[in-house]
Amino acid sequence: MTIAARVLIAVLIFSTGHALAERPTMTDVLAAATDADWRRPLAENTLYLKLPAGIVIMEVAPQFAPDVINNLRVMTDADYFANTAIIRSQENYVVQWADPNAESDKALSLGRAAPTVKAEFYRSGSDLDMELIDSRDAYADEVGFVDGFPAGRDADKSRAWLLHCYGMLGVGRANDPDSGSGAELYVVTGHAPRHLDRNVVLIGRVLQGMELLTTLPRGTGDLSFYESASEFTPIEYMRFADDVPEVDRINLEVLRTDTGTFRQLVESRRYRSDPWFVDPAGKIGVCNVPLPVRQVE
Amino acid sequence: MTIAARVLIAVLIFSTGHALAERPTMTDVLAAATDADWRRPLAENTLYLKLPAGIVIMEVAPQFAPDVINNLRVMTDADYFANTAIIRSQENYVVQWADPNAESDKALSLGRAAPTVKAEFYRSGSDLDMELIDSRDAYADEVGFVDGFPAGRDADKSRAWLLHCYGMLGVGRANDPDSGSGAELYVVTGHAPRHLDRNVVLIGRVLQGMELLTTLPRGTGDLSFYESASEFTPIEYMRFADDVPEVDRINLEVLRTDTGTFRQLVESRRYRSDPWFVDPAGKIGVCNVPLPVRQVE
Repeated sequence: MTIAARVLIAVLIFSTGHALAERPTMTDVLAAATDADWRRPLAENTLYLKLPAGIVIMEVAPQFAPDVINNLRVMTDADYFANTAIIRSQENYVVQWADPNAESDKALSLGRAAPTVKAEFYRSGSDLDMELIDSRDAYADEVGFVDGFPAGRDADKSRAWLLHCYGMLGVGRANDPDSGSGAELYVVTGHAPRHLDRNVVLIGRVLQGMELLTTLPRGTGDLSFYESASEFTPIEYMRFADDVPEVDRINLEVLRTDTGTFRQLVESRRYRSDPWFVDPAGKIGVCNVPLPVRQVE
Repeated sequence: MTIAARVLIAVLIFSTGHALAERPTMTDVLAAATDADWRRPLAENTLYLKLPAGIVIMEVAPQFAPDVINNLRVMTDADYFANTAIIRSQENYVVQWADPNAESDKALSLGRAAPTVKAEFYRSGSDLDMELIDSRDAYADEVGFVDGFPAGRDADKSRAWLLHCYGMLGVGRANDPDSGSGAELYVVTGHAPRHLDRNVVLIGRVLQGMELLTTLPRGTGDLSFYESASEFTPIEYMRFADDVPEVDRINLEVLRTDTGTFRQLVESRRYRSDPWFVDPAGKIGVCNVPLPVRQVE
C-alpha cells in the first residue's frame, strides 16, 4: 500500500499535532510533558501475566482493594498461577483465568492464601485524592481518576470505587459477595460493563499487552467458557514484578493523573482540534480518557 | 472442568431468570416475547461480508445515510469488494477494510459508483420515530433507538445521528468531510469512540460475526494498519442479501426497539435482579443496551 493510501485512510483516527491548532492535541500535550509528569508503578504493585504469546503487565490499586491484593500476593509468592489457564473469552465482555479444576478434587492448593476475602466493592470517598473530570456519567454522580485508575464517587463522597472501563482487572466471585479470593481474575475486553461497578472487586488495570487477551478465540460454551482443555491458554506464571526473571522485565511508566499535564490531556480529548474533525465533540466520557503508558530504558 | 466450577465462575455475569425476582431479568423478558416483537431485516438492508473464517452480517440504516448506502450498493452490485481486504485492526478501536491499492495506479475501479458522497453526519430529528431511553449520556442531549440502531438527538430535535457504539459500521473518509464513498468501511471493536459521532457517517451495525473481526491480529504499523499484504484478511465478497449464494444465507431476526417488550428489556438491564447482583445499578448507558438477534429456520 502506498503511503498516500495509508494517510488517506489513517486520518479516520488521528492527525499529528499541528502548530496552528488553537487547542493542543494529545500529541502536543504528550510532547510537552516532562519526566515529572510520569511515574513508575511500584514493583510491588506491578503484576506480570506470562502467556505463551507474551506478557500482560498490570498495575494493582491497593488503595481500593488492599485485602484481596494481599491475598493475591500470597498466591503469587507460592506460584499458584503456574498451572492455571485462561478458561473463558466472551465477545465484548471479559477474558477470565483461573484453575480449571478449582471446584474438583484436583484443585490446586491455595496454600496460606484465604479461600475467600470480604468484598471491597467501595471505600470511603472523603479521604481520597480524586482528580474529577467534568463528564455527564450514566452511572456515577462523580467520575475521575485516582493514582491513574478511573474511579467513581457518590455526590456526598460517602463511597468511591473503581470503574469497569476497558482493560480493568477484577476478581471473580460466586453469588456470595464475599466469595472472591483473587484466584480467579478477569479483564474487561469490551464496552465498559459499568453495571458491574460495586458488584465485583476491581483491583487494577492492564498497562500493556491487552491484545494478547482480546485476540483470543471466543469460547463456545455457556458464557463463552472454553469447552475443552485444548482451547485453554496456559499461564506460565503470574507474579509481581519483584519475582519476575530479569529477562522478562519491562520498565513502564504511566502518565500521572494528578497534574496540569493530565488535565490538558483530558481537554485535548474533550475538544478535538485535529483538522480531520468537523465537530470537536466538546464532551468526554470517563472510559474514553486515554491513560498513556510508555516503555523506558 | 466440572459443572460446579463452571457455575461458580459463570455467575460473574448472568444468572438464569428466576421466578421469585421482583423485576424480570433479560432472560425472562426474551422468554415472554412473541413473534411480533421480532422483525426480519429487509434483504436490501442486509449486508454480508464473507471472510475466510466465516460471514459477518450487518444491517444498514438508510433512514440515516441513504446516499452513501445507495453508492455502496452500486459497488456491491459490481462485486467491488471481491478484491479488497481487511487492512487494519486497532486495539480497542476499529477494524477497517478497503482496496489496499486504492491510492495507487492499481486501484480497483469504482465503476458507476461515485468516488465521494456528500457527508450524512446527521439528519433532522423532528420527523424521526425515536424510542428514547432515560440515560445521562456524556455526549448527546437525548439517546435512544431508531429501528434497532442506537441514536442521539439534540434537545430541540434539530439533529439526530447514529452513535459509535460497539459493533457499529461506518464510512472512512479523508480530511474533507465529503470524501467518503463507502469503498472504505470500519466496524467499532472497542469501547464506544463517541467523539467520532457526527464526524463520520455511520451506516449500520453488525448483527452476527463480530468475533471474526475482533479476534484478528492487531496491525503493527501506524494506526495499526498491517505492514504487509501477507497480514491482510482477504474478503471473498461483500454483498447485500439478495445477491448472496443460497448456501451462505442465514436468516436473522432482531428484536424490535419500538415495543413494550423492548422497554422491559431496557429496564431489566437497568435494574439487575439476578441473585448475583448486590447493587442493581439502576442506571444504564445507551451503548450498554443489548440488541438481541436470533437465527431462524
